[in-house]
Amino acid sequence: MNAAADLATAPYEAPAGLAGVSVARTEVSDVLGRLGFYHYRGYNAVDIARRGRVEDAWYLLMRGELPTAEQREEFARDIAALRELPAGVAELLPAIARLSPPGSLASLRTAVSATAQAMGCQPWTDQSDAETAQQAIRLSAIMPVLAAQLFRLASGQDVVQPRADLGYSDNYLYMITGTVPDERSRYAVERYLMLTIDHGFNNSTFTSRVIASSGADLGAVVSGALGALSGPFHGGAPARVFDMLDAIGAPDNAEPWLRKAIERGDKLMGFGHRIYKTVDPRSQLLHEVARELRSQRVEFAELVEQTAVRLLAELKPGRELYANVEFYAGVVLEAAGLPREMFTATFACSRIIGWMANVLEQIDDNRIFRPLAHYDGPAAPREFPACWQPGQP
Amino acid sequence: MNAAADLATAPYEAPAGLAGVSVARTEVSDVLGRLGFYHYRGYNAVDIARRGRVEDAWYLLMRGELPTAEQREEFARDIAALRELPAGVAELLPAIARLSPPGSLASLRTAVSATAQAMGCQPWTDQSDAETAQQAIRLSAIMPVLAAQLFRLASGQDVVQPRADLGYSDNYLYMITGTVPDERSRYAVERYLMLTIDHGFNNSTFTSRVIASSGADLGAVVSGALGALSGPFHGGAPARVFDMLDAIGAPDNAEPWLRKAIERGDKLMGFGHRIYKTVDPRSQLLHEVARELRSQRVEFAELVEQTAVRLLAELKPGRELYANVEFYAGVVLEAAGLPREMFTATFACSRIIGWMANVLEQIDDNRIFRPLAHYDGPAAPREFPACWQPGQP
Repeated sequence: MNAAADLATAPYEAPAGLAGVSVARTEVSDVLGRLGFYHYRGYNAVDIARRGRVEDAWYLLMRGELPTAEQREEFARDIAALRELPAGVAELLPAIARLSPPGSLASLRTAVSATAQAMGCQPWTDQSDAETAQQAIRLSAIMPVLAAQLFRLASGQDVVQPRADLGYSDNYLYMITGTVPDERSRYAVERYLMLTIDHGFNNSTFTSRVIASSGADLGAVVSGALGALSGPFHGGAPARVFDMLDAIGAPDNAEPWLRKAIERGDKLMGFGHRIYKTVDPRSQLLHEVARELRSQRVEFAELVEQTAVRLLAELKPGRELYANVEFYAGVVLEAAGLPREMFTATFACSRIIGWMANVLEQIDDNRIFRPLAHYDGPAAPREFPACWQPGQP
Repeated sequence: MNAAADLATAPYEAPAGLAGVSVARTEVSDVLGRLGFYHYRGYNAVDIARRGRVEDAWYLLMRGELPTAEQREEFARDIAALRELPAGVAELLPAIARLSPPGSLASLRTAVSATAQAMGCQPWTDQSDAETAQQAIRLSAIMPVLAAQLFRLASGQDVVQPRADLGYSDNYLYMITGTVPDERSRYAVERYLMLTIDHGFNNSTFTSRVIASSGADLGAVVSGALGALSGPFHGGAPARVFDMLDAIGAPDNAEPWLRKAIERGDKLMGFGHRIYKTVDPRSQLLHEVARELRSQRVEFAELVEQTAVRLLAELKPGRELYANVEFYAGVVLEAAGLPREMFTATFACSRIIGWMANVLEQIDDNRIFRPLAHYDGPAAPREFPACWQPGQP
């Protein structure tokens, strides 16, 4: 007796991980993996990242269109004003920061959950759509503040309050380092942020939709999605690419190290993607940005990339493994002055904008995600074993 | 240009909410909706709930078999010892409790997230499976402690420390009320807890698998799943059933109130289920338990149930709407002395056991959940509008 026998029609058995299964309609973004192309609301995302600022992409995701100069200015002012923490949160941050190392997404998860409480976020079913949309923007504006303050507290530094007179990326680097960044660093980090705002139904974006579909508040959505992003198979990898570069150490060691790793069956950090079967377009722009930063790392990273792609083609023919967004991300973020521990938290700061756009779309035409499973344990109902000695009910 | 055109084979377009789509294989539990039957690892769940204690069902979910008397005793001792909060958490609870009303799942979400940090939970990819399994049990043991302490703090009472000499359900009620419960109350709450441990791929259980599939730590999993459970379409409803009973007020008002609500198109709280198209077997046992408690509420609730089922059959023919688990849950929990604000948190305490069993299974044969979406916005790539005035990149 199983679920299939119980249904009028047998359920569709999806491939593991829902690979190749379309689970909803969306107007937010799309990824065309074989073409190496992705977009935000129809506009080439890489071109937006080349031409504008975080505020442009954020406006597009939230409002559905790219802004005029006036709209841009007003939006930038609005979101800058939303950087202030709600009452009751600042006092919690030192104790939260003590629980995990600097840059921990677990600290950020706890802090954003508390922030949503302090903001009074209610199930979206119990408040107006306008309130939910406003909370979505406010949480996105506060995420970088929490990330920066937790980082400074966990590394024994005083927090740096946000400045409403700075643009998104300037303010982000300022809150972490305590100094308004130079133009090159800001430019580099801004490209990274813009490139990573949204990317189809990745694991954390899907998580945010699944949670929102229950009617839950945006605090539930964001803390859950952050949790998903913290997984090493998702957002947890950029720093690990760096660890790999460190482990390789010197140019001469690239070929033997990589060959050994691939032959041993290790997954190379920063290579391969479920959707892209060609060069990741995000990696291409980040590679260009990395070159402009002229760090020593860049040349070494390029050598590692070329060697890895060559060896993967040789040792894993047909697998189409190329550098993904994470490969050059670390190089760019480090050269721009971001501590390595903050790579994943930085990713969270941009990606929350995508989560929020997806969630606002989800709740506009919602049905709760409640799939089936294929039971394949012992046939039910089983007889209770004689050895079972239950406690007195 | 869309994702379908980009793939060699068109993706499967799943129905909204993944209804009728089987997303994984499982040996944990199954729900046979048309038969009004569900089980834990093949054993009739209602029969387990009739015959044993939380510790029996918990052991079964974790270890795969029902325990012998000796195994039961050892397990009960082990989990009782795990009720202690890790260092750094107790100090945080008063500030978290201040941010939301008593019984808030948002407070519980923040607190369990912090607890997992304090326990040192790492991505499961970075620790042994034995460590992950041990953390799964510890988090499940701590959840009721957090729920009870947050409740007492938020309602201005001193916390009551857990007692290792009490069984699961006795200790739970003791921590909330400050008194070891009488046998009838303990019996009633224990039936509720045992009936709600697991139930197929409901929204929060699915959430826990989606998050775990990224490699994330159990703190990410549990806080995300709690968020999902807090949604009114999922775990947020038991208290709302109660609100409905209050709104109806008197027996004479049942028929006119319900008729008006149904004709207005309102969804009746506590009726209907995505999977069950017959009487919810959980509701049946809870109804029996409610009768034994002989509360005044019970007769009234019965009248409301009967009237609602009759009116739903008359006004929504063919929809097969019956009382679900939530309908009698509130009546039982209140009669057993649980404050109404604690209904959903109580559900969280039992359901975390199901989440953990599912997650341990997921990571044993993992593939990251990364579905597709069907893009149906403006055709990409769109030309940038002339009115766009991007910020200086």
